[in-house]
Amino acid sequence: MDLNCDMGESYGLWKMGDDEAMMPYITSANIACGFHAGDPHIMRKTVEMAVQYKVAIGAHPGYCDLIGFGRRNLSATREEIIELMAYQLGALDGMCRLSGTRIVHVKPHGALYNTAAVDPAVADAVAVGIKAYNPDLILVGLAGSLLVDAAKEHGLSVAGEAFADRQYQDDGTLVPRSHPGAVLHDADDVAIRVMDMIRTRTIRSISGKSIELDFDTVCLHGDTPGAVQMAAEIRAMLDSKHISLTSLAGRN
Amino acid sequence: MDLNCDMGESYGLWKMGDDEAMMPYITSANIACGFHAGDPHIMRKTVEMAVQYKVAIGAHPGYCDLIGFGRRNLSATREEIIELMAYQLGALDGMCRLSGTRIVHVKPHGALYNTAAVDPAVADAVAVGIKAYNPDLILVGLAGSLLVDAAKEHGLSVAGEAFADRQYQDDGTLVPRSHPGAVLHDADDVAIRVMDMIRTRTIRSISGKSIELDFDTVCLHGDTPGAVQMAAEIRAMLDSKHISLTSLAGRN
Amino acid sequence: MDLNCDMGESYGLWKMGDDEAMMPYITSANIACGFHAGDPHIMRKTVEMAVQYKVAIGAHPGYCDLIGFGRRNLSATREEIIELMAYQLGALDGMCRLSGTRIVHVKPHGALYNTAAVDPAVADAVAVGIKAYNPDLILVGLAGSLLVDAAKEHGLSVAGEAFADRQYQDDGTLVPRSHPGAVLHDADDVAIRVMDMIRTRTIRSISGKSIELDFDTVCLHGDTPGAVQMAAEIRAMLDSKHISLTSLAGRN
Amino acid sequence: MDLNCDMGESYGLWKMGDDEAMMPYITSANIACGFHAGDPHIMRKTVEMAVQYKVAIGAHPGYCDLIGFGRRNLSATREEIIELMAYQLGALDGMCRLSGTRIVHVKPHGALYNTAAVDPAVADAVAVGIKAYNPDLILVGLAGSLLVDAAKEHGLSVAGEAFADRQYQDDGTLVPRSHPGAVLHDADDVAIRVMDMIRTRTIRSISGKSIELDFDTVCLHGDTPGAVQMAAEIRAMLDSKHISLTSLAGRN
Repeated sequence: MDLNCDMGESYGLWKMGDDEAMMPYITSANIACGFHAGDPHIMRKTVEMAVQYKVAIGAHPGYCDLIGFGRRNLSATREEIIELMAYQLGALDGMCRLSGTRIVHVKPHGALYNTAAVDPAVADAVAVGIKAYNPDLILVGLAGSLLVDAAKEHGLSVAGEAFADRQYQDDGTLVPRSHPGAVLHDADDVAIRVMDMIRTRTIRSISGKSIELDFDTVCLHGDTPGAVQMAAEIRAMLDSKHISLTSLAGRN
Repeated sequence: MDLNCDMGESYGLWKMGDDEAMMPYITSANIACGFHAGDPHIMRKTVEMAVQYKVAIGAHPGYCDLIGFGRRNLSATREEIIELMAYQLGALDGMCRLSGTRIVHVKPHGALYNTAAVDPAVADAVAVGIKAYNPDLILVGLAGSLLVDAAKEHGLSVAGEAFADRQYQDDGTLVPRSHPGAVLHDADDVAIRVMDMIRTRTIRSISGKSIELDFDTVCLHGDTPGAVQMAAEIRAMLDSKHISLTSLAGRN
Repeated sequence: MDLNCDMGESYGLWKMGDDEAMMPYITSANIACGFHAGDPHIMRKTVEMAVQYKVAIGAHPGYCDLIGFGRRNLSATREEIIELMAYQLGALDGMCRLSGTRIVHVKPHGALYNTAAVDPAVADAVAVGIKAYNPDLILVGLAGSLLVDAAKEHGLSVAGEAFADRQYQDDGTLVPRSHPGAVLHDADDVAIRVMDMIRTRTIRSISGKSIELDFDTVCLHGDTPGAVQMAAEIRAMLDSKHISLTSLAGRN
Repeated sequence: MDLNCDMGESYGLWKMGDDEAMMPYITSANIACGFHAGDPHIMRKTVEMAVQYKVAIGAHPGYCDLIGFGRRNLSATREEIIELMAYQLGALDGMCRLSGTRIVHVKPHGALYNTAAVDPAVADAVAVGIKAYNPDLILVGLAGSLLVDAAKEHGLSVAGEAFADRQYQDDGTLVPRSHPGAVLHDADDVAIRVMDMIRTRTIRSISGKSIELDFDTVCLHGDTPGAVQMAAEIRAMLDSKHISLTSLAGRN
């Protein structure tokens, strides 16, 4: 099982999350590529930290929208999506080369991730962009979503993603953030929940139903209050139960 | 001898130069990488055109300054220069991968080019950035400048650049654009001048002195009135005299 | 009757349209405010030109999206729309102060204009933003659209806009640009069409039906091939028929 | 005496400083205008907070450089400086209008502030920009600097600025940040220092010399660790000694 976290989402002097504090607890870092967050310096420092902590590096490309942090939908054409993928993947690879490393996986960010999960045209464009850039990259997408399907159709390796601190609906989709209780805040509860979902490959929905979920990586959030503490508890719980953690790198 | 031209310097709906019309006359295209000009779509289209016309692709990275078109000096640190080089080289490589091609050379743009020609710290940072990204890339810099020296010191292949339509001072530097007559506009005169400089490896200064110039590529401007016509006449002149033109790609 | 044109849509070194050539033929200039086009220098020069040609100045605010030229939909909240209106109106007023003049009207740009015409929430936010900034400003919106209604509800002066070179559907909406024949290119035909629509206050739809249209200003495009020639012919036609042209400034 | 603080320097989701916590202790807020920091939403919220806490509002315009936070020098022409001043002043005034308030003063930011303090051409352009926008605005500049002189020459009201937590050289200039001990961190010491400088209108230099300083406002930093605590102590000290604090608004 892989534990991933979005990283390098600072910009210039502005800080987002405590990347270094999160590094010991994860196996994969999704690094922002400059369009929604992350400037070249932040990207380089984040790559260096990932190398130091032996954390696998993934690209975290988003729509070009700093003010909206890539969370606002933007009506982009198929070509524009392919191009923004290739541009950002290349840019992060450029920073990786400065540290003698490389990108292992790709996880779209924010509105691009969410739209690709439900819009087949956007999902296809994301998959095509990754494949055209480098067919050996592993796509990380919402477990059970159209993005995962699209990537498989294009022959990409795929990792379904589950969320440690988010409630699920009975159909396996996430409870929207606007819904009360959509996000879990108790570190102990979340740690147990993650352990259970990894052991059983199922997740308990907000209504209490057990849902099968085809996932390979669990997303920890790094930018919420208590994020580092929660990550530490999750990691400690998994280590104590001898659940083996490894990045997606070894899968290909 | 190589003929190069700065390309892909449009942005969104805004056009700069007539790249397609210039393509038949040149052997190398320096493609803007998104910081001073060029968005992902423009970059991709320019790469596709270069492939179609069998023109070698180079990166044309600049300072992050759309309003100033990368022509304004910006006090960047050594690290920032290394990082902006790697980011932009990677981003253009990303677009090249969409067309199954690759970058051959790197020519810094505008204020970065000019500063690197005279400031040893900036020259060194540019060279280090290129080498760290890919030591096989060829640096294109002002013939006889500190940038050329810095690249050689770092073991990079180097191509000195001469300008077809610019007057030179007796010390081999360019007459500043602000000086009357600094830029030559007569296509016939420029064509003869280019032929002479290639044959003799010298250039006549504005005072009439013959200067030795160690150059491997001649820059044609694509964004001035009459640019295409001038390029056509230069190319016709060189072809008529059987002066062999080839990109820098074959040199390594 | 007012003739308006979108202006100041260059950016840095990139040119869009020939604003100075259009100025003699129009009575109102909608000046871009830096979010989709127009930098502070372009804005100032355009204001100066408008003053010189005695053309009324309006703001032309858009979504913050240079690459997409403000033509891509962006999911902005009500507050974000109010704020982007106030920011851009203020910024253009700042440039007007350098020339001792002021803004008369406001015409949203691109996706903001189109969305506000059909989405009541966006229409309301645009109207609220204008009113909160300066309730004496005149809103220019698509004749018969929700934006015009929203502005009236908020007590703003309103000018309905008709398009000189666009075909209309029977319901008074524009034929989409993607439809063949949606845009008229013959300058003579367009001049006669404009004269007829002003005289009769009706417009002939693409199916030949006569539609009543409540409009106060006619939009001439400045960024299409032949734009200046078309504007000259329209203006000559109207002048020859003694159709009086005046900006919206005198209406309040 | 006035106490000022730079505010509204967050951007999108990125936070800088705790503006609301600082508000009770200051009399003037210098609000970033979108070029180096501050987006329309942040600007509006900061204006609203200032109104709520009865803090006078000033503009804090900077060079257009988000990545460098406006702290990197940028070679801007005289016209560009005038224009960036007018654009940003207008934009902030736009946000002020949403709250029924107005700008009282202008304090340039970062590299623009520092360059204007020592470069007479930049100082003059800043003053001209403010005067052309609104001659009633009060310029805040480094006490004793060329910027203060330039503003006076143009007939602007001027407020010299002293820094609470910075060491001074014997000639009245600031000890560069790179120098050890340039920035003071002990809240008690700084509070006493501020009280002394206000009472005596002199400041003790790093060498122990007493320097006369013609200042009207003291800058508190809001983005350093312990900033709020230091501000609270300074304010408590001044209040306990019945030193009257008032914004610059009443001076005109």
